[in-house]
Amino acid sequence: MDKRKTKLTMSQVMYPHQANLAGNVHGGEVMKLMDTTAAAVARRYARSNVVTARVDELQFHHPIFVGSLVTLTATIAYVGRTSMEVVVNVYIEDLESDTEPIRALSSYFTMVALDKDGVPKQVPPFVPETEEEIMLYNTIKERREALKKKSGK
Amino acid sequence: MDKRKTKLTMSQVMYPHQANLAGNVHGGEVMKLMDTTAAAVARRYARSNVVTARVDELQFHHPIFVGSLVTLTATIAYVGRTSMEVVVNVYIEDLESDTEPIRALSSYFTMVALDKDGVPKQVPPFVPETEEEIMLYNTIKERREALKKKSGK
Amino acid sequence: MDKRKTKLTMSQVMYPHQANLAGNVHGGEVMKLMDTTAAAVARRYARSNVVTARVDELQFHHPIFVGSLVTLTATIAYVGRTSMEVVVNVYIEDLESDTEPIRALSSYFTMVALDKDGVPKQVPPFVPETEEEIMLYNTIKERREALKKKSGK
Amino acid sequence: MDKRKTKLTMSQVMYPHQANLAGNVHGGEVMKLMDTTAAAVARRYARSNVVTARVDELQFHHPIFVGSLVTLTATIAYVGRTSMEVVVNVYIEDLESDTEPIRALSSYFTMVALDKDGVPKQVPPFVPETEEEIMLYNTIKERREALKKKSGK
Amino acid sequence: MDKRKTKLTMSQVMYPHQANLAGNVHGGEVMKLMDTTAAAVARRYARSNVVTARVDELQFHHPIFVGSLVTLTATIAYVGRTSMEVVVNVYIEDLESDTEPIRALSSYFTMVALDKDGVPKQVPPFVPETEEEIMLYNTIKERREALKKKSGK
Amino acid sequence: MDKRKTKLTMSQVMYPHQANLAGNVHGGEVMKLMDTTAAAVARRYARSNVVTARVDELQFHHPIFVGSLVTLTATIAYVGRTSMEVVVNVYIEDLESDTEPIRALSSYFTMVALDKDGVPKQVPPFVPETEEEIMLYNTIKERREALKKKSGK
Repeated sequence: MDKRKTKLTMSQVMYPHQANLAGNVHGGEVMKLMDTTAAAVARRYARSNVVTARVDELQFHHPIFVGSLVTLTATIAYVGRTSMEVVVNVYIEDLESDTEPIRALSSYFTMVALDKDGVPKQVPPFVPETEEEIMLYNTIKERREALKKKSGK
Repeated sequence: MDKRKTKLTMSQVMYPHQANLAGNVHGGEVMKLMDTTAAAVARRYARSNVVTARVDELQFHHPIFVGSLVTLTATIAYVGRTSMEVVVNVYIEDLESDTEPIRALSSYFTMVALDKDGVPKQVPPFVPETEEEIMLYNTIKERREALKKKSGK
Repeated sequence: MDKRKTKLTMSQVMYPHQANLAGNVHGGEVMKLMDTTAAAVARRYARSNVVTARVDELQFHHPIFVGSLVTLTATIAYVGRTSMEVVVNVYIEDLESDTEPIRALSSYFTMVALDKDGVPKQVPPFVPETEEEIMLYNTIKERREALKKKSGK
Repeated sequence: MDKRKTKLTMSQVMYPHQANLAGNVHGGEVMKLMDTTAAAVARRYARSNVVTARVDELQFHHPIFVGSLVTLTATIAYVGRTSMEVVVNVYIEDLESDTEPIRALSSYFTMVALDKDGVPKQVPPFVPETEEEIMLYNTIKERREALKKKSGK
Repeated sequence: MDKRKTKLTMSQVMYPHQANLAGNVHGGEVMKLMDTTAAAVARRYARSNVVTARVDELQFHHPIFVGSLVTLTATIAYVGRTSMEVVVNVYIEDLESDTEPIRALSSYFTMVALDKDGVPKQVPPFVPETEEEIMLYNTIKERREALKKKSGK
Repeated sequence: MDKRKTKLTMSQVMYPHQANLAGNVHGGEVMKLMDTTAAAVARRYARSNVVTARVDELQFHHPIFVGSLVTLTATIAYVGRTSMEVVVNVYIEDLESDTEPIRALSSYFTMVALDKDGVPKQVPPFVPETEEEIMLYNTIKERREALKKKSGK
């Protein structure tokens, strides 16, 4: 499988106009970037427009300071018939100090591929390869099944 | 308990600059509004600054069209020592037709109150009153305990 | 008359990117929100697109601080053949203190309903009911007549 | 009197992100620009920070299309002890055709000068010179007196 | 030649949301305004849509502070068959002090006129008149020829 | 030399609010992103705040469509005492098709490192290593010397 198609990175520097009331980066602003990155990797995987269906376990591990370089990675980790499960991580780096980047947020996004009429369309199958990918694949599969059972679908 | 302090409503009309690639409202834009509303009700409940700790089960039930009136409700449903669980719902209304508002998104936000030095501070206790509030309170309590067990804390 | 159709409320929290040079909320930003709220109630009343024709007696009673919850109410108070007079009030609330909301701005907006070709279209008649509504209705009617006389129309 | 200090011009091209639901320029966006221009001429006249106190007779004469060059003129026309009356006009020009600029909006803004502690401060006196300036001066003076009588101040 | 068609001025006040990490105006924000002004004068000269082809010798002479009035002038100085060379200067004025405006940036923009299908279209010829215009015209002509030689076209 | 410190990549998806009048991405918006990327790599190299001093040979090779993934690379290619020469390239990728990324813009940015008082500060020396780096280093060195001679410094 072409690795380029299952992982996508976005990055940008945070500016003062993105600040919240405490002067750090607005959490909602970062959530919006996460959604954009998840949509980008899913659009490239499905080669079509996509919509966000749900977001799970979005966690804020660290505050993000204005001036930081924010790097978002979105990795496709499971694929259903028309939906894609995307793991999104956010790393921050203080450009003016010598410290290493740290992970500031993590989350699971479920995206659905749409054809030109806005109807869900089938996406290429996904086969996890490395041990890490297989573990993640199984975790997501279980959660999806638990979710389906719970919602009675 | 003062109802005014556990529920807060925000609403605004969606404009073209908030559109995604398909011409509907960008999902990330709505997530940002949800975060803002959750933060507002938590700030009022705690009478202090707050940060978002996590977001769970954020679901997109319906697309949001440019021009719609979007109404967000944030309701405090459970309170820990320094954290508040907030249920956020998003309703949309097509102002130019006679249709009723419908629910477009739903989610749970966990907010943490901070004192002036940015340290978590205690918030007033919360006692659910109506049957519906008690049910929701118990659901959230169970999820929190499951989460704590899972993360080994 | 359906009350829902003659009154509409919008509300949002003010963030640092909306600040003016003194660090408070930019007055022009609030005027924009007032225009948006007036347009929303008029669109719902007329069930069509609308344009702003004029704004009168827009008064700033109090500065608005970043972090405040701003609530705008727009109430239709008089209706001509194709135009609607809308009273817009802006209330602000400091979420982190125990103070009551106060009125920060007030204004009258005149909106005109447009059909799909951009031509003014007739709107449903408006009958004031409560004593307060009737008083406001008559005040606006007088002002409109004085204005027509002055402009020689 | 130094003419440079009583008149200020701002101009910019309108872009798609400033559009309203009908695809023209959002009226509230233009009101915000008018407020900014009135504040700029008042800041220069008073050589201090200013706030908007009120807006009167703001009229939309023509819609503004995306792509137009918008030119705003703000002229100080009357000065009280701490307040300045500013006439704001908005002209639009279609850059890709041979047509002349036309006036799209007009309005009166009342600005108040503030010292560094936010207290109203005295501004230099204003003496109208040309016949046109004197006529405008007297019109505004009458309106201010009528307003004061009405509000019982 | 109609002078109005070869020179265009844009101006606006810089606000806090346009700040960089040091609290001054973001250089990229000013570059965007320069591009917009160059495009505006070129659109008016060609009476058509235009695109930016290149930017040369863009120099920052002075930092721009939030609150300044920024005035941009764009002057057409040389015209090829489908391209226009535009000199863009940026002047800043501190509205609250008595100082004169100073030049903060300067640059050369090369714009290309496009017809409705996006194909380069011929623009009216340009004849420099004053001594200053002729000198500038020749400087640009030489640079263009040097550039063509260098790129082997 | 630590390669991580002389090259930095930023990337983001272009959205409709960044469009110009023709519906493609506003050139000025991309120039702003280029400036931000050049500043980021220079801030990391100098471990301090920086300002843009000049931009040369900024060329638009291809239009950028809304929806594209834009990737900007900024590479430090020459270092003076307090200034850094940064080569910025912009690549675009159509996520919904199988085409390869193409280079859309290129440019040279000159950045100056500033200490906490805003005074230019010395930056670490830069030694080009690969053949390509050495060629680029020499090209820039020559241009800088020609520029100095021309400006008589």
